[in-house]
Amino acid sequence: MSLDYNPSHLTLLLTVVDDRDGEVLGDAIQRLVERDEVLACHVLPCTTKKNRPGHVLLVLVDGGDDPDGTAERVAREIMTLTGSTGVDRFDADGVYSVPSRFETVEVRYGDRRWEVSVKVAETPDGEPVTVKAEFDECRRIGREVGLPPREVKALVEAAARVGGTVDLKRREIRVDRETADARSETRRPGARP
Amino acid sequence: MSLDYNPSHLTLLLTVVDDRDGEVLGDAIQRLVERDEVLACHVLPCTTKKNRPGHVLLVLVDGGDDPDGTAERVAREIMTLTGSTGVDRFDADGVYSVPSRFETVEVRYGDRRWEVSVKVAETPDGEPVTVKAEFDECRRIGREVGLPPREVKALVEAAARVGGTVDLKRREIRVDRETADARSETRRPGARP
Amino acid sequence: MSLDYNPSHLTLLLTVVDDRDGEVLGDAIQRLVERDEVLACHVLPCTTKKNRPGHVLLVLVDGGDDPDGTAERVAREIMTLTGSTGVDRFDADGVYSVPSRFETVEVRYGDRRWEVSVKVAETPDGEPVTVKAEFDECRRIGREVGLPPREVKALVEAAARVGGTVDLKRREIRVDRETADARSETRRPGARP
Repeated sequence: MSLDYNPSHLTLLLTVVDDRDGEVLGDAIQRLVERDEVLACHVLPCTTKKNRPGHVLLVLVDGGDDPDGTAERVAREIMTLTGSTGVDRFDADGVYSVPSRFETVEVRYGDRRWEVSVKVAETPDGEPVTVKAEFDECRRIGREVGLPPREVKALVEAAARVGGTVDLKRREIRVDRETADARSETRRPGARP
Repeated sequence: MSLDYNPSHLTLLLTVVDDRDGEVLGDAIQRLVERDEVLACHVLPCTTKKNRPGHVLLVLVDGGDDPDGTAERVAREIMTLTGSTGVDRFDADGVYSVPSRFETVEVRYGDRRWEVSVKVAETPDGEPVTVKAEFDECRRIGREVGLPPREVKALVEAAARVGGTVDLKRREIRVDRETADARSETRRPGARP
Repeated sequence: MSLDYNPSHLTLLLTVVDDRDGEVLGDAIQRLVERDEVLACHVLPCTTKKNRPGHVLLVLVDGGDDPDGTAERVAREIMTLTGSTGVDRFDADGVYSVPSRFETVEVRYGDRRWEVSVKVAETPDGEPVTVKAEFDECRRIGREVGLPPREVKALVEAAARVGGTVDLKRREIRVDRETADARSETRRPGARP
């Protein structure tokens, strides 16, 4: 079986900025990805003309039904946000993708309870590609209970992989189909049962 | 109204170098951008084969009336300068640009007087894209009078936006149409009038 | 005379990873370049969505007789290794290259003797592009005899350029056609003859 392959909707816009500061570029990233037609925006450090430090800006645009109009609108926004006077356009020959779905994992800490979204993707023949907890949700919970976000994230992802729930206080994964706790191999080394 | 859009003249040449030092790459950037057909040249740090540090070299070429010959000449120069034995070519699907013009801003410091070039660009419907003083000129003046180049640059750009001139000694913008000084909001905080 | 130009076999696959650590990406580079159809793999640091640090992964694929099948297989491997759920494909318009050949240079240190491979490439009209000793071989010899690899590499490359051999102990290049030592200009400054 093959991956999803969409042959034509994506455009890469490229420009280089050697005269704007990090505040401006950071805002440009934020503003650009808020647009529905912008799939991603990346800023890469470089050395440019006259050996000056600069940044390459890559913006991936979903052209949809109007690739020319969409690319131009985004190019204009790039210019407005960064002051660039030239934006180069490279149309992709295609995009490979695997469909992803969101599942939820229950997380408890004493009486408190949350549901965390987990993005799950597999290749068409069932090879797992990613099991990824929404970081912002893990961060929020981590702050509430005093745990590092990466610890919450690791437990949630482990629970998603075994179809279980997370007891954050004991740092354990529970599989509800069983009465006993699942002594998950992902449990934190050194944690007491 | 739409941006200028040139559908076909630009080519991106890409190669990777993992065996040249910064001196060689710095010279390659300089030498390549001296060529009329090279619009820009950027060196991006990367990690490459065997997890070695390396650099991606991106060179944007204006193919003009002879895109194949031009791209080949520049590819050969890249090889000669960097030792790369392979250069990949990606023809852009287009380039968005806004026309820019140069204006001059008068700068005074006591009896001394300079004219600084400022690049100005707007979208076709008049949205400002960039007002940018030539940095090398600002740097030269800054050294002469003992001010940081970014201070000179900020004052020149502010003057260009209001159609005024710069009194560097008082760090003020003057709008010549008025007798009184323009108390520009870009004046340095804490400067006395 | 013109460079070798192959108009169509190369594909660039691009994806961005903001949720994997250096160990995973380092392994992905290694695993991808082990594939015959992967010509090169580069990881570039970037700032991405929500101003998070991330990495752009560029993979250059030789599509051979089956560009679609090859690109898809590599895209799938990228997904499996990195957890990315989307990979963008840009087919190159061509590749410029110069043919390279391997020569060997004899290296001696007292009674010990090695042969080191040197990659040599020239443009069709004889302009030298690169003379490059295989680094891993230089490193191995350097460790055996207690010299820094870059010193072994410099001597081997100098010997290749003059058609000579290397006496590592005396740090000299010898040109066999002559009885006398070649007092090479590349000899280490300060070394005694």
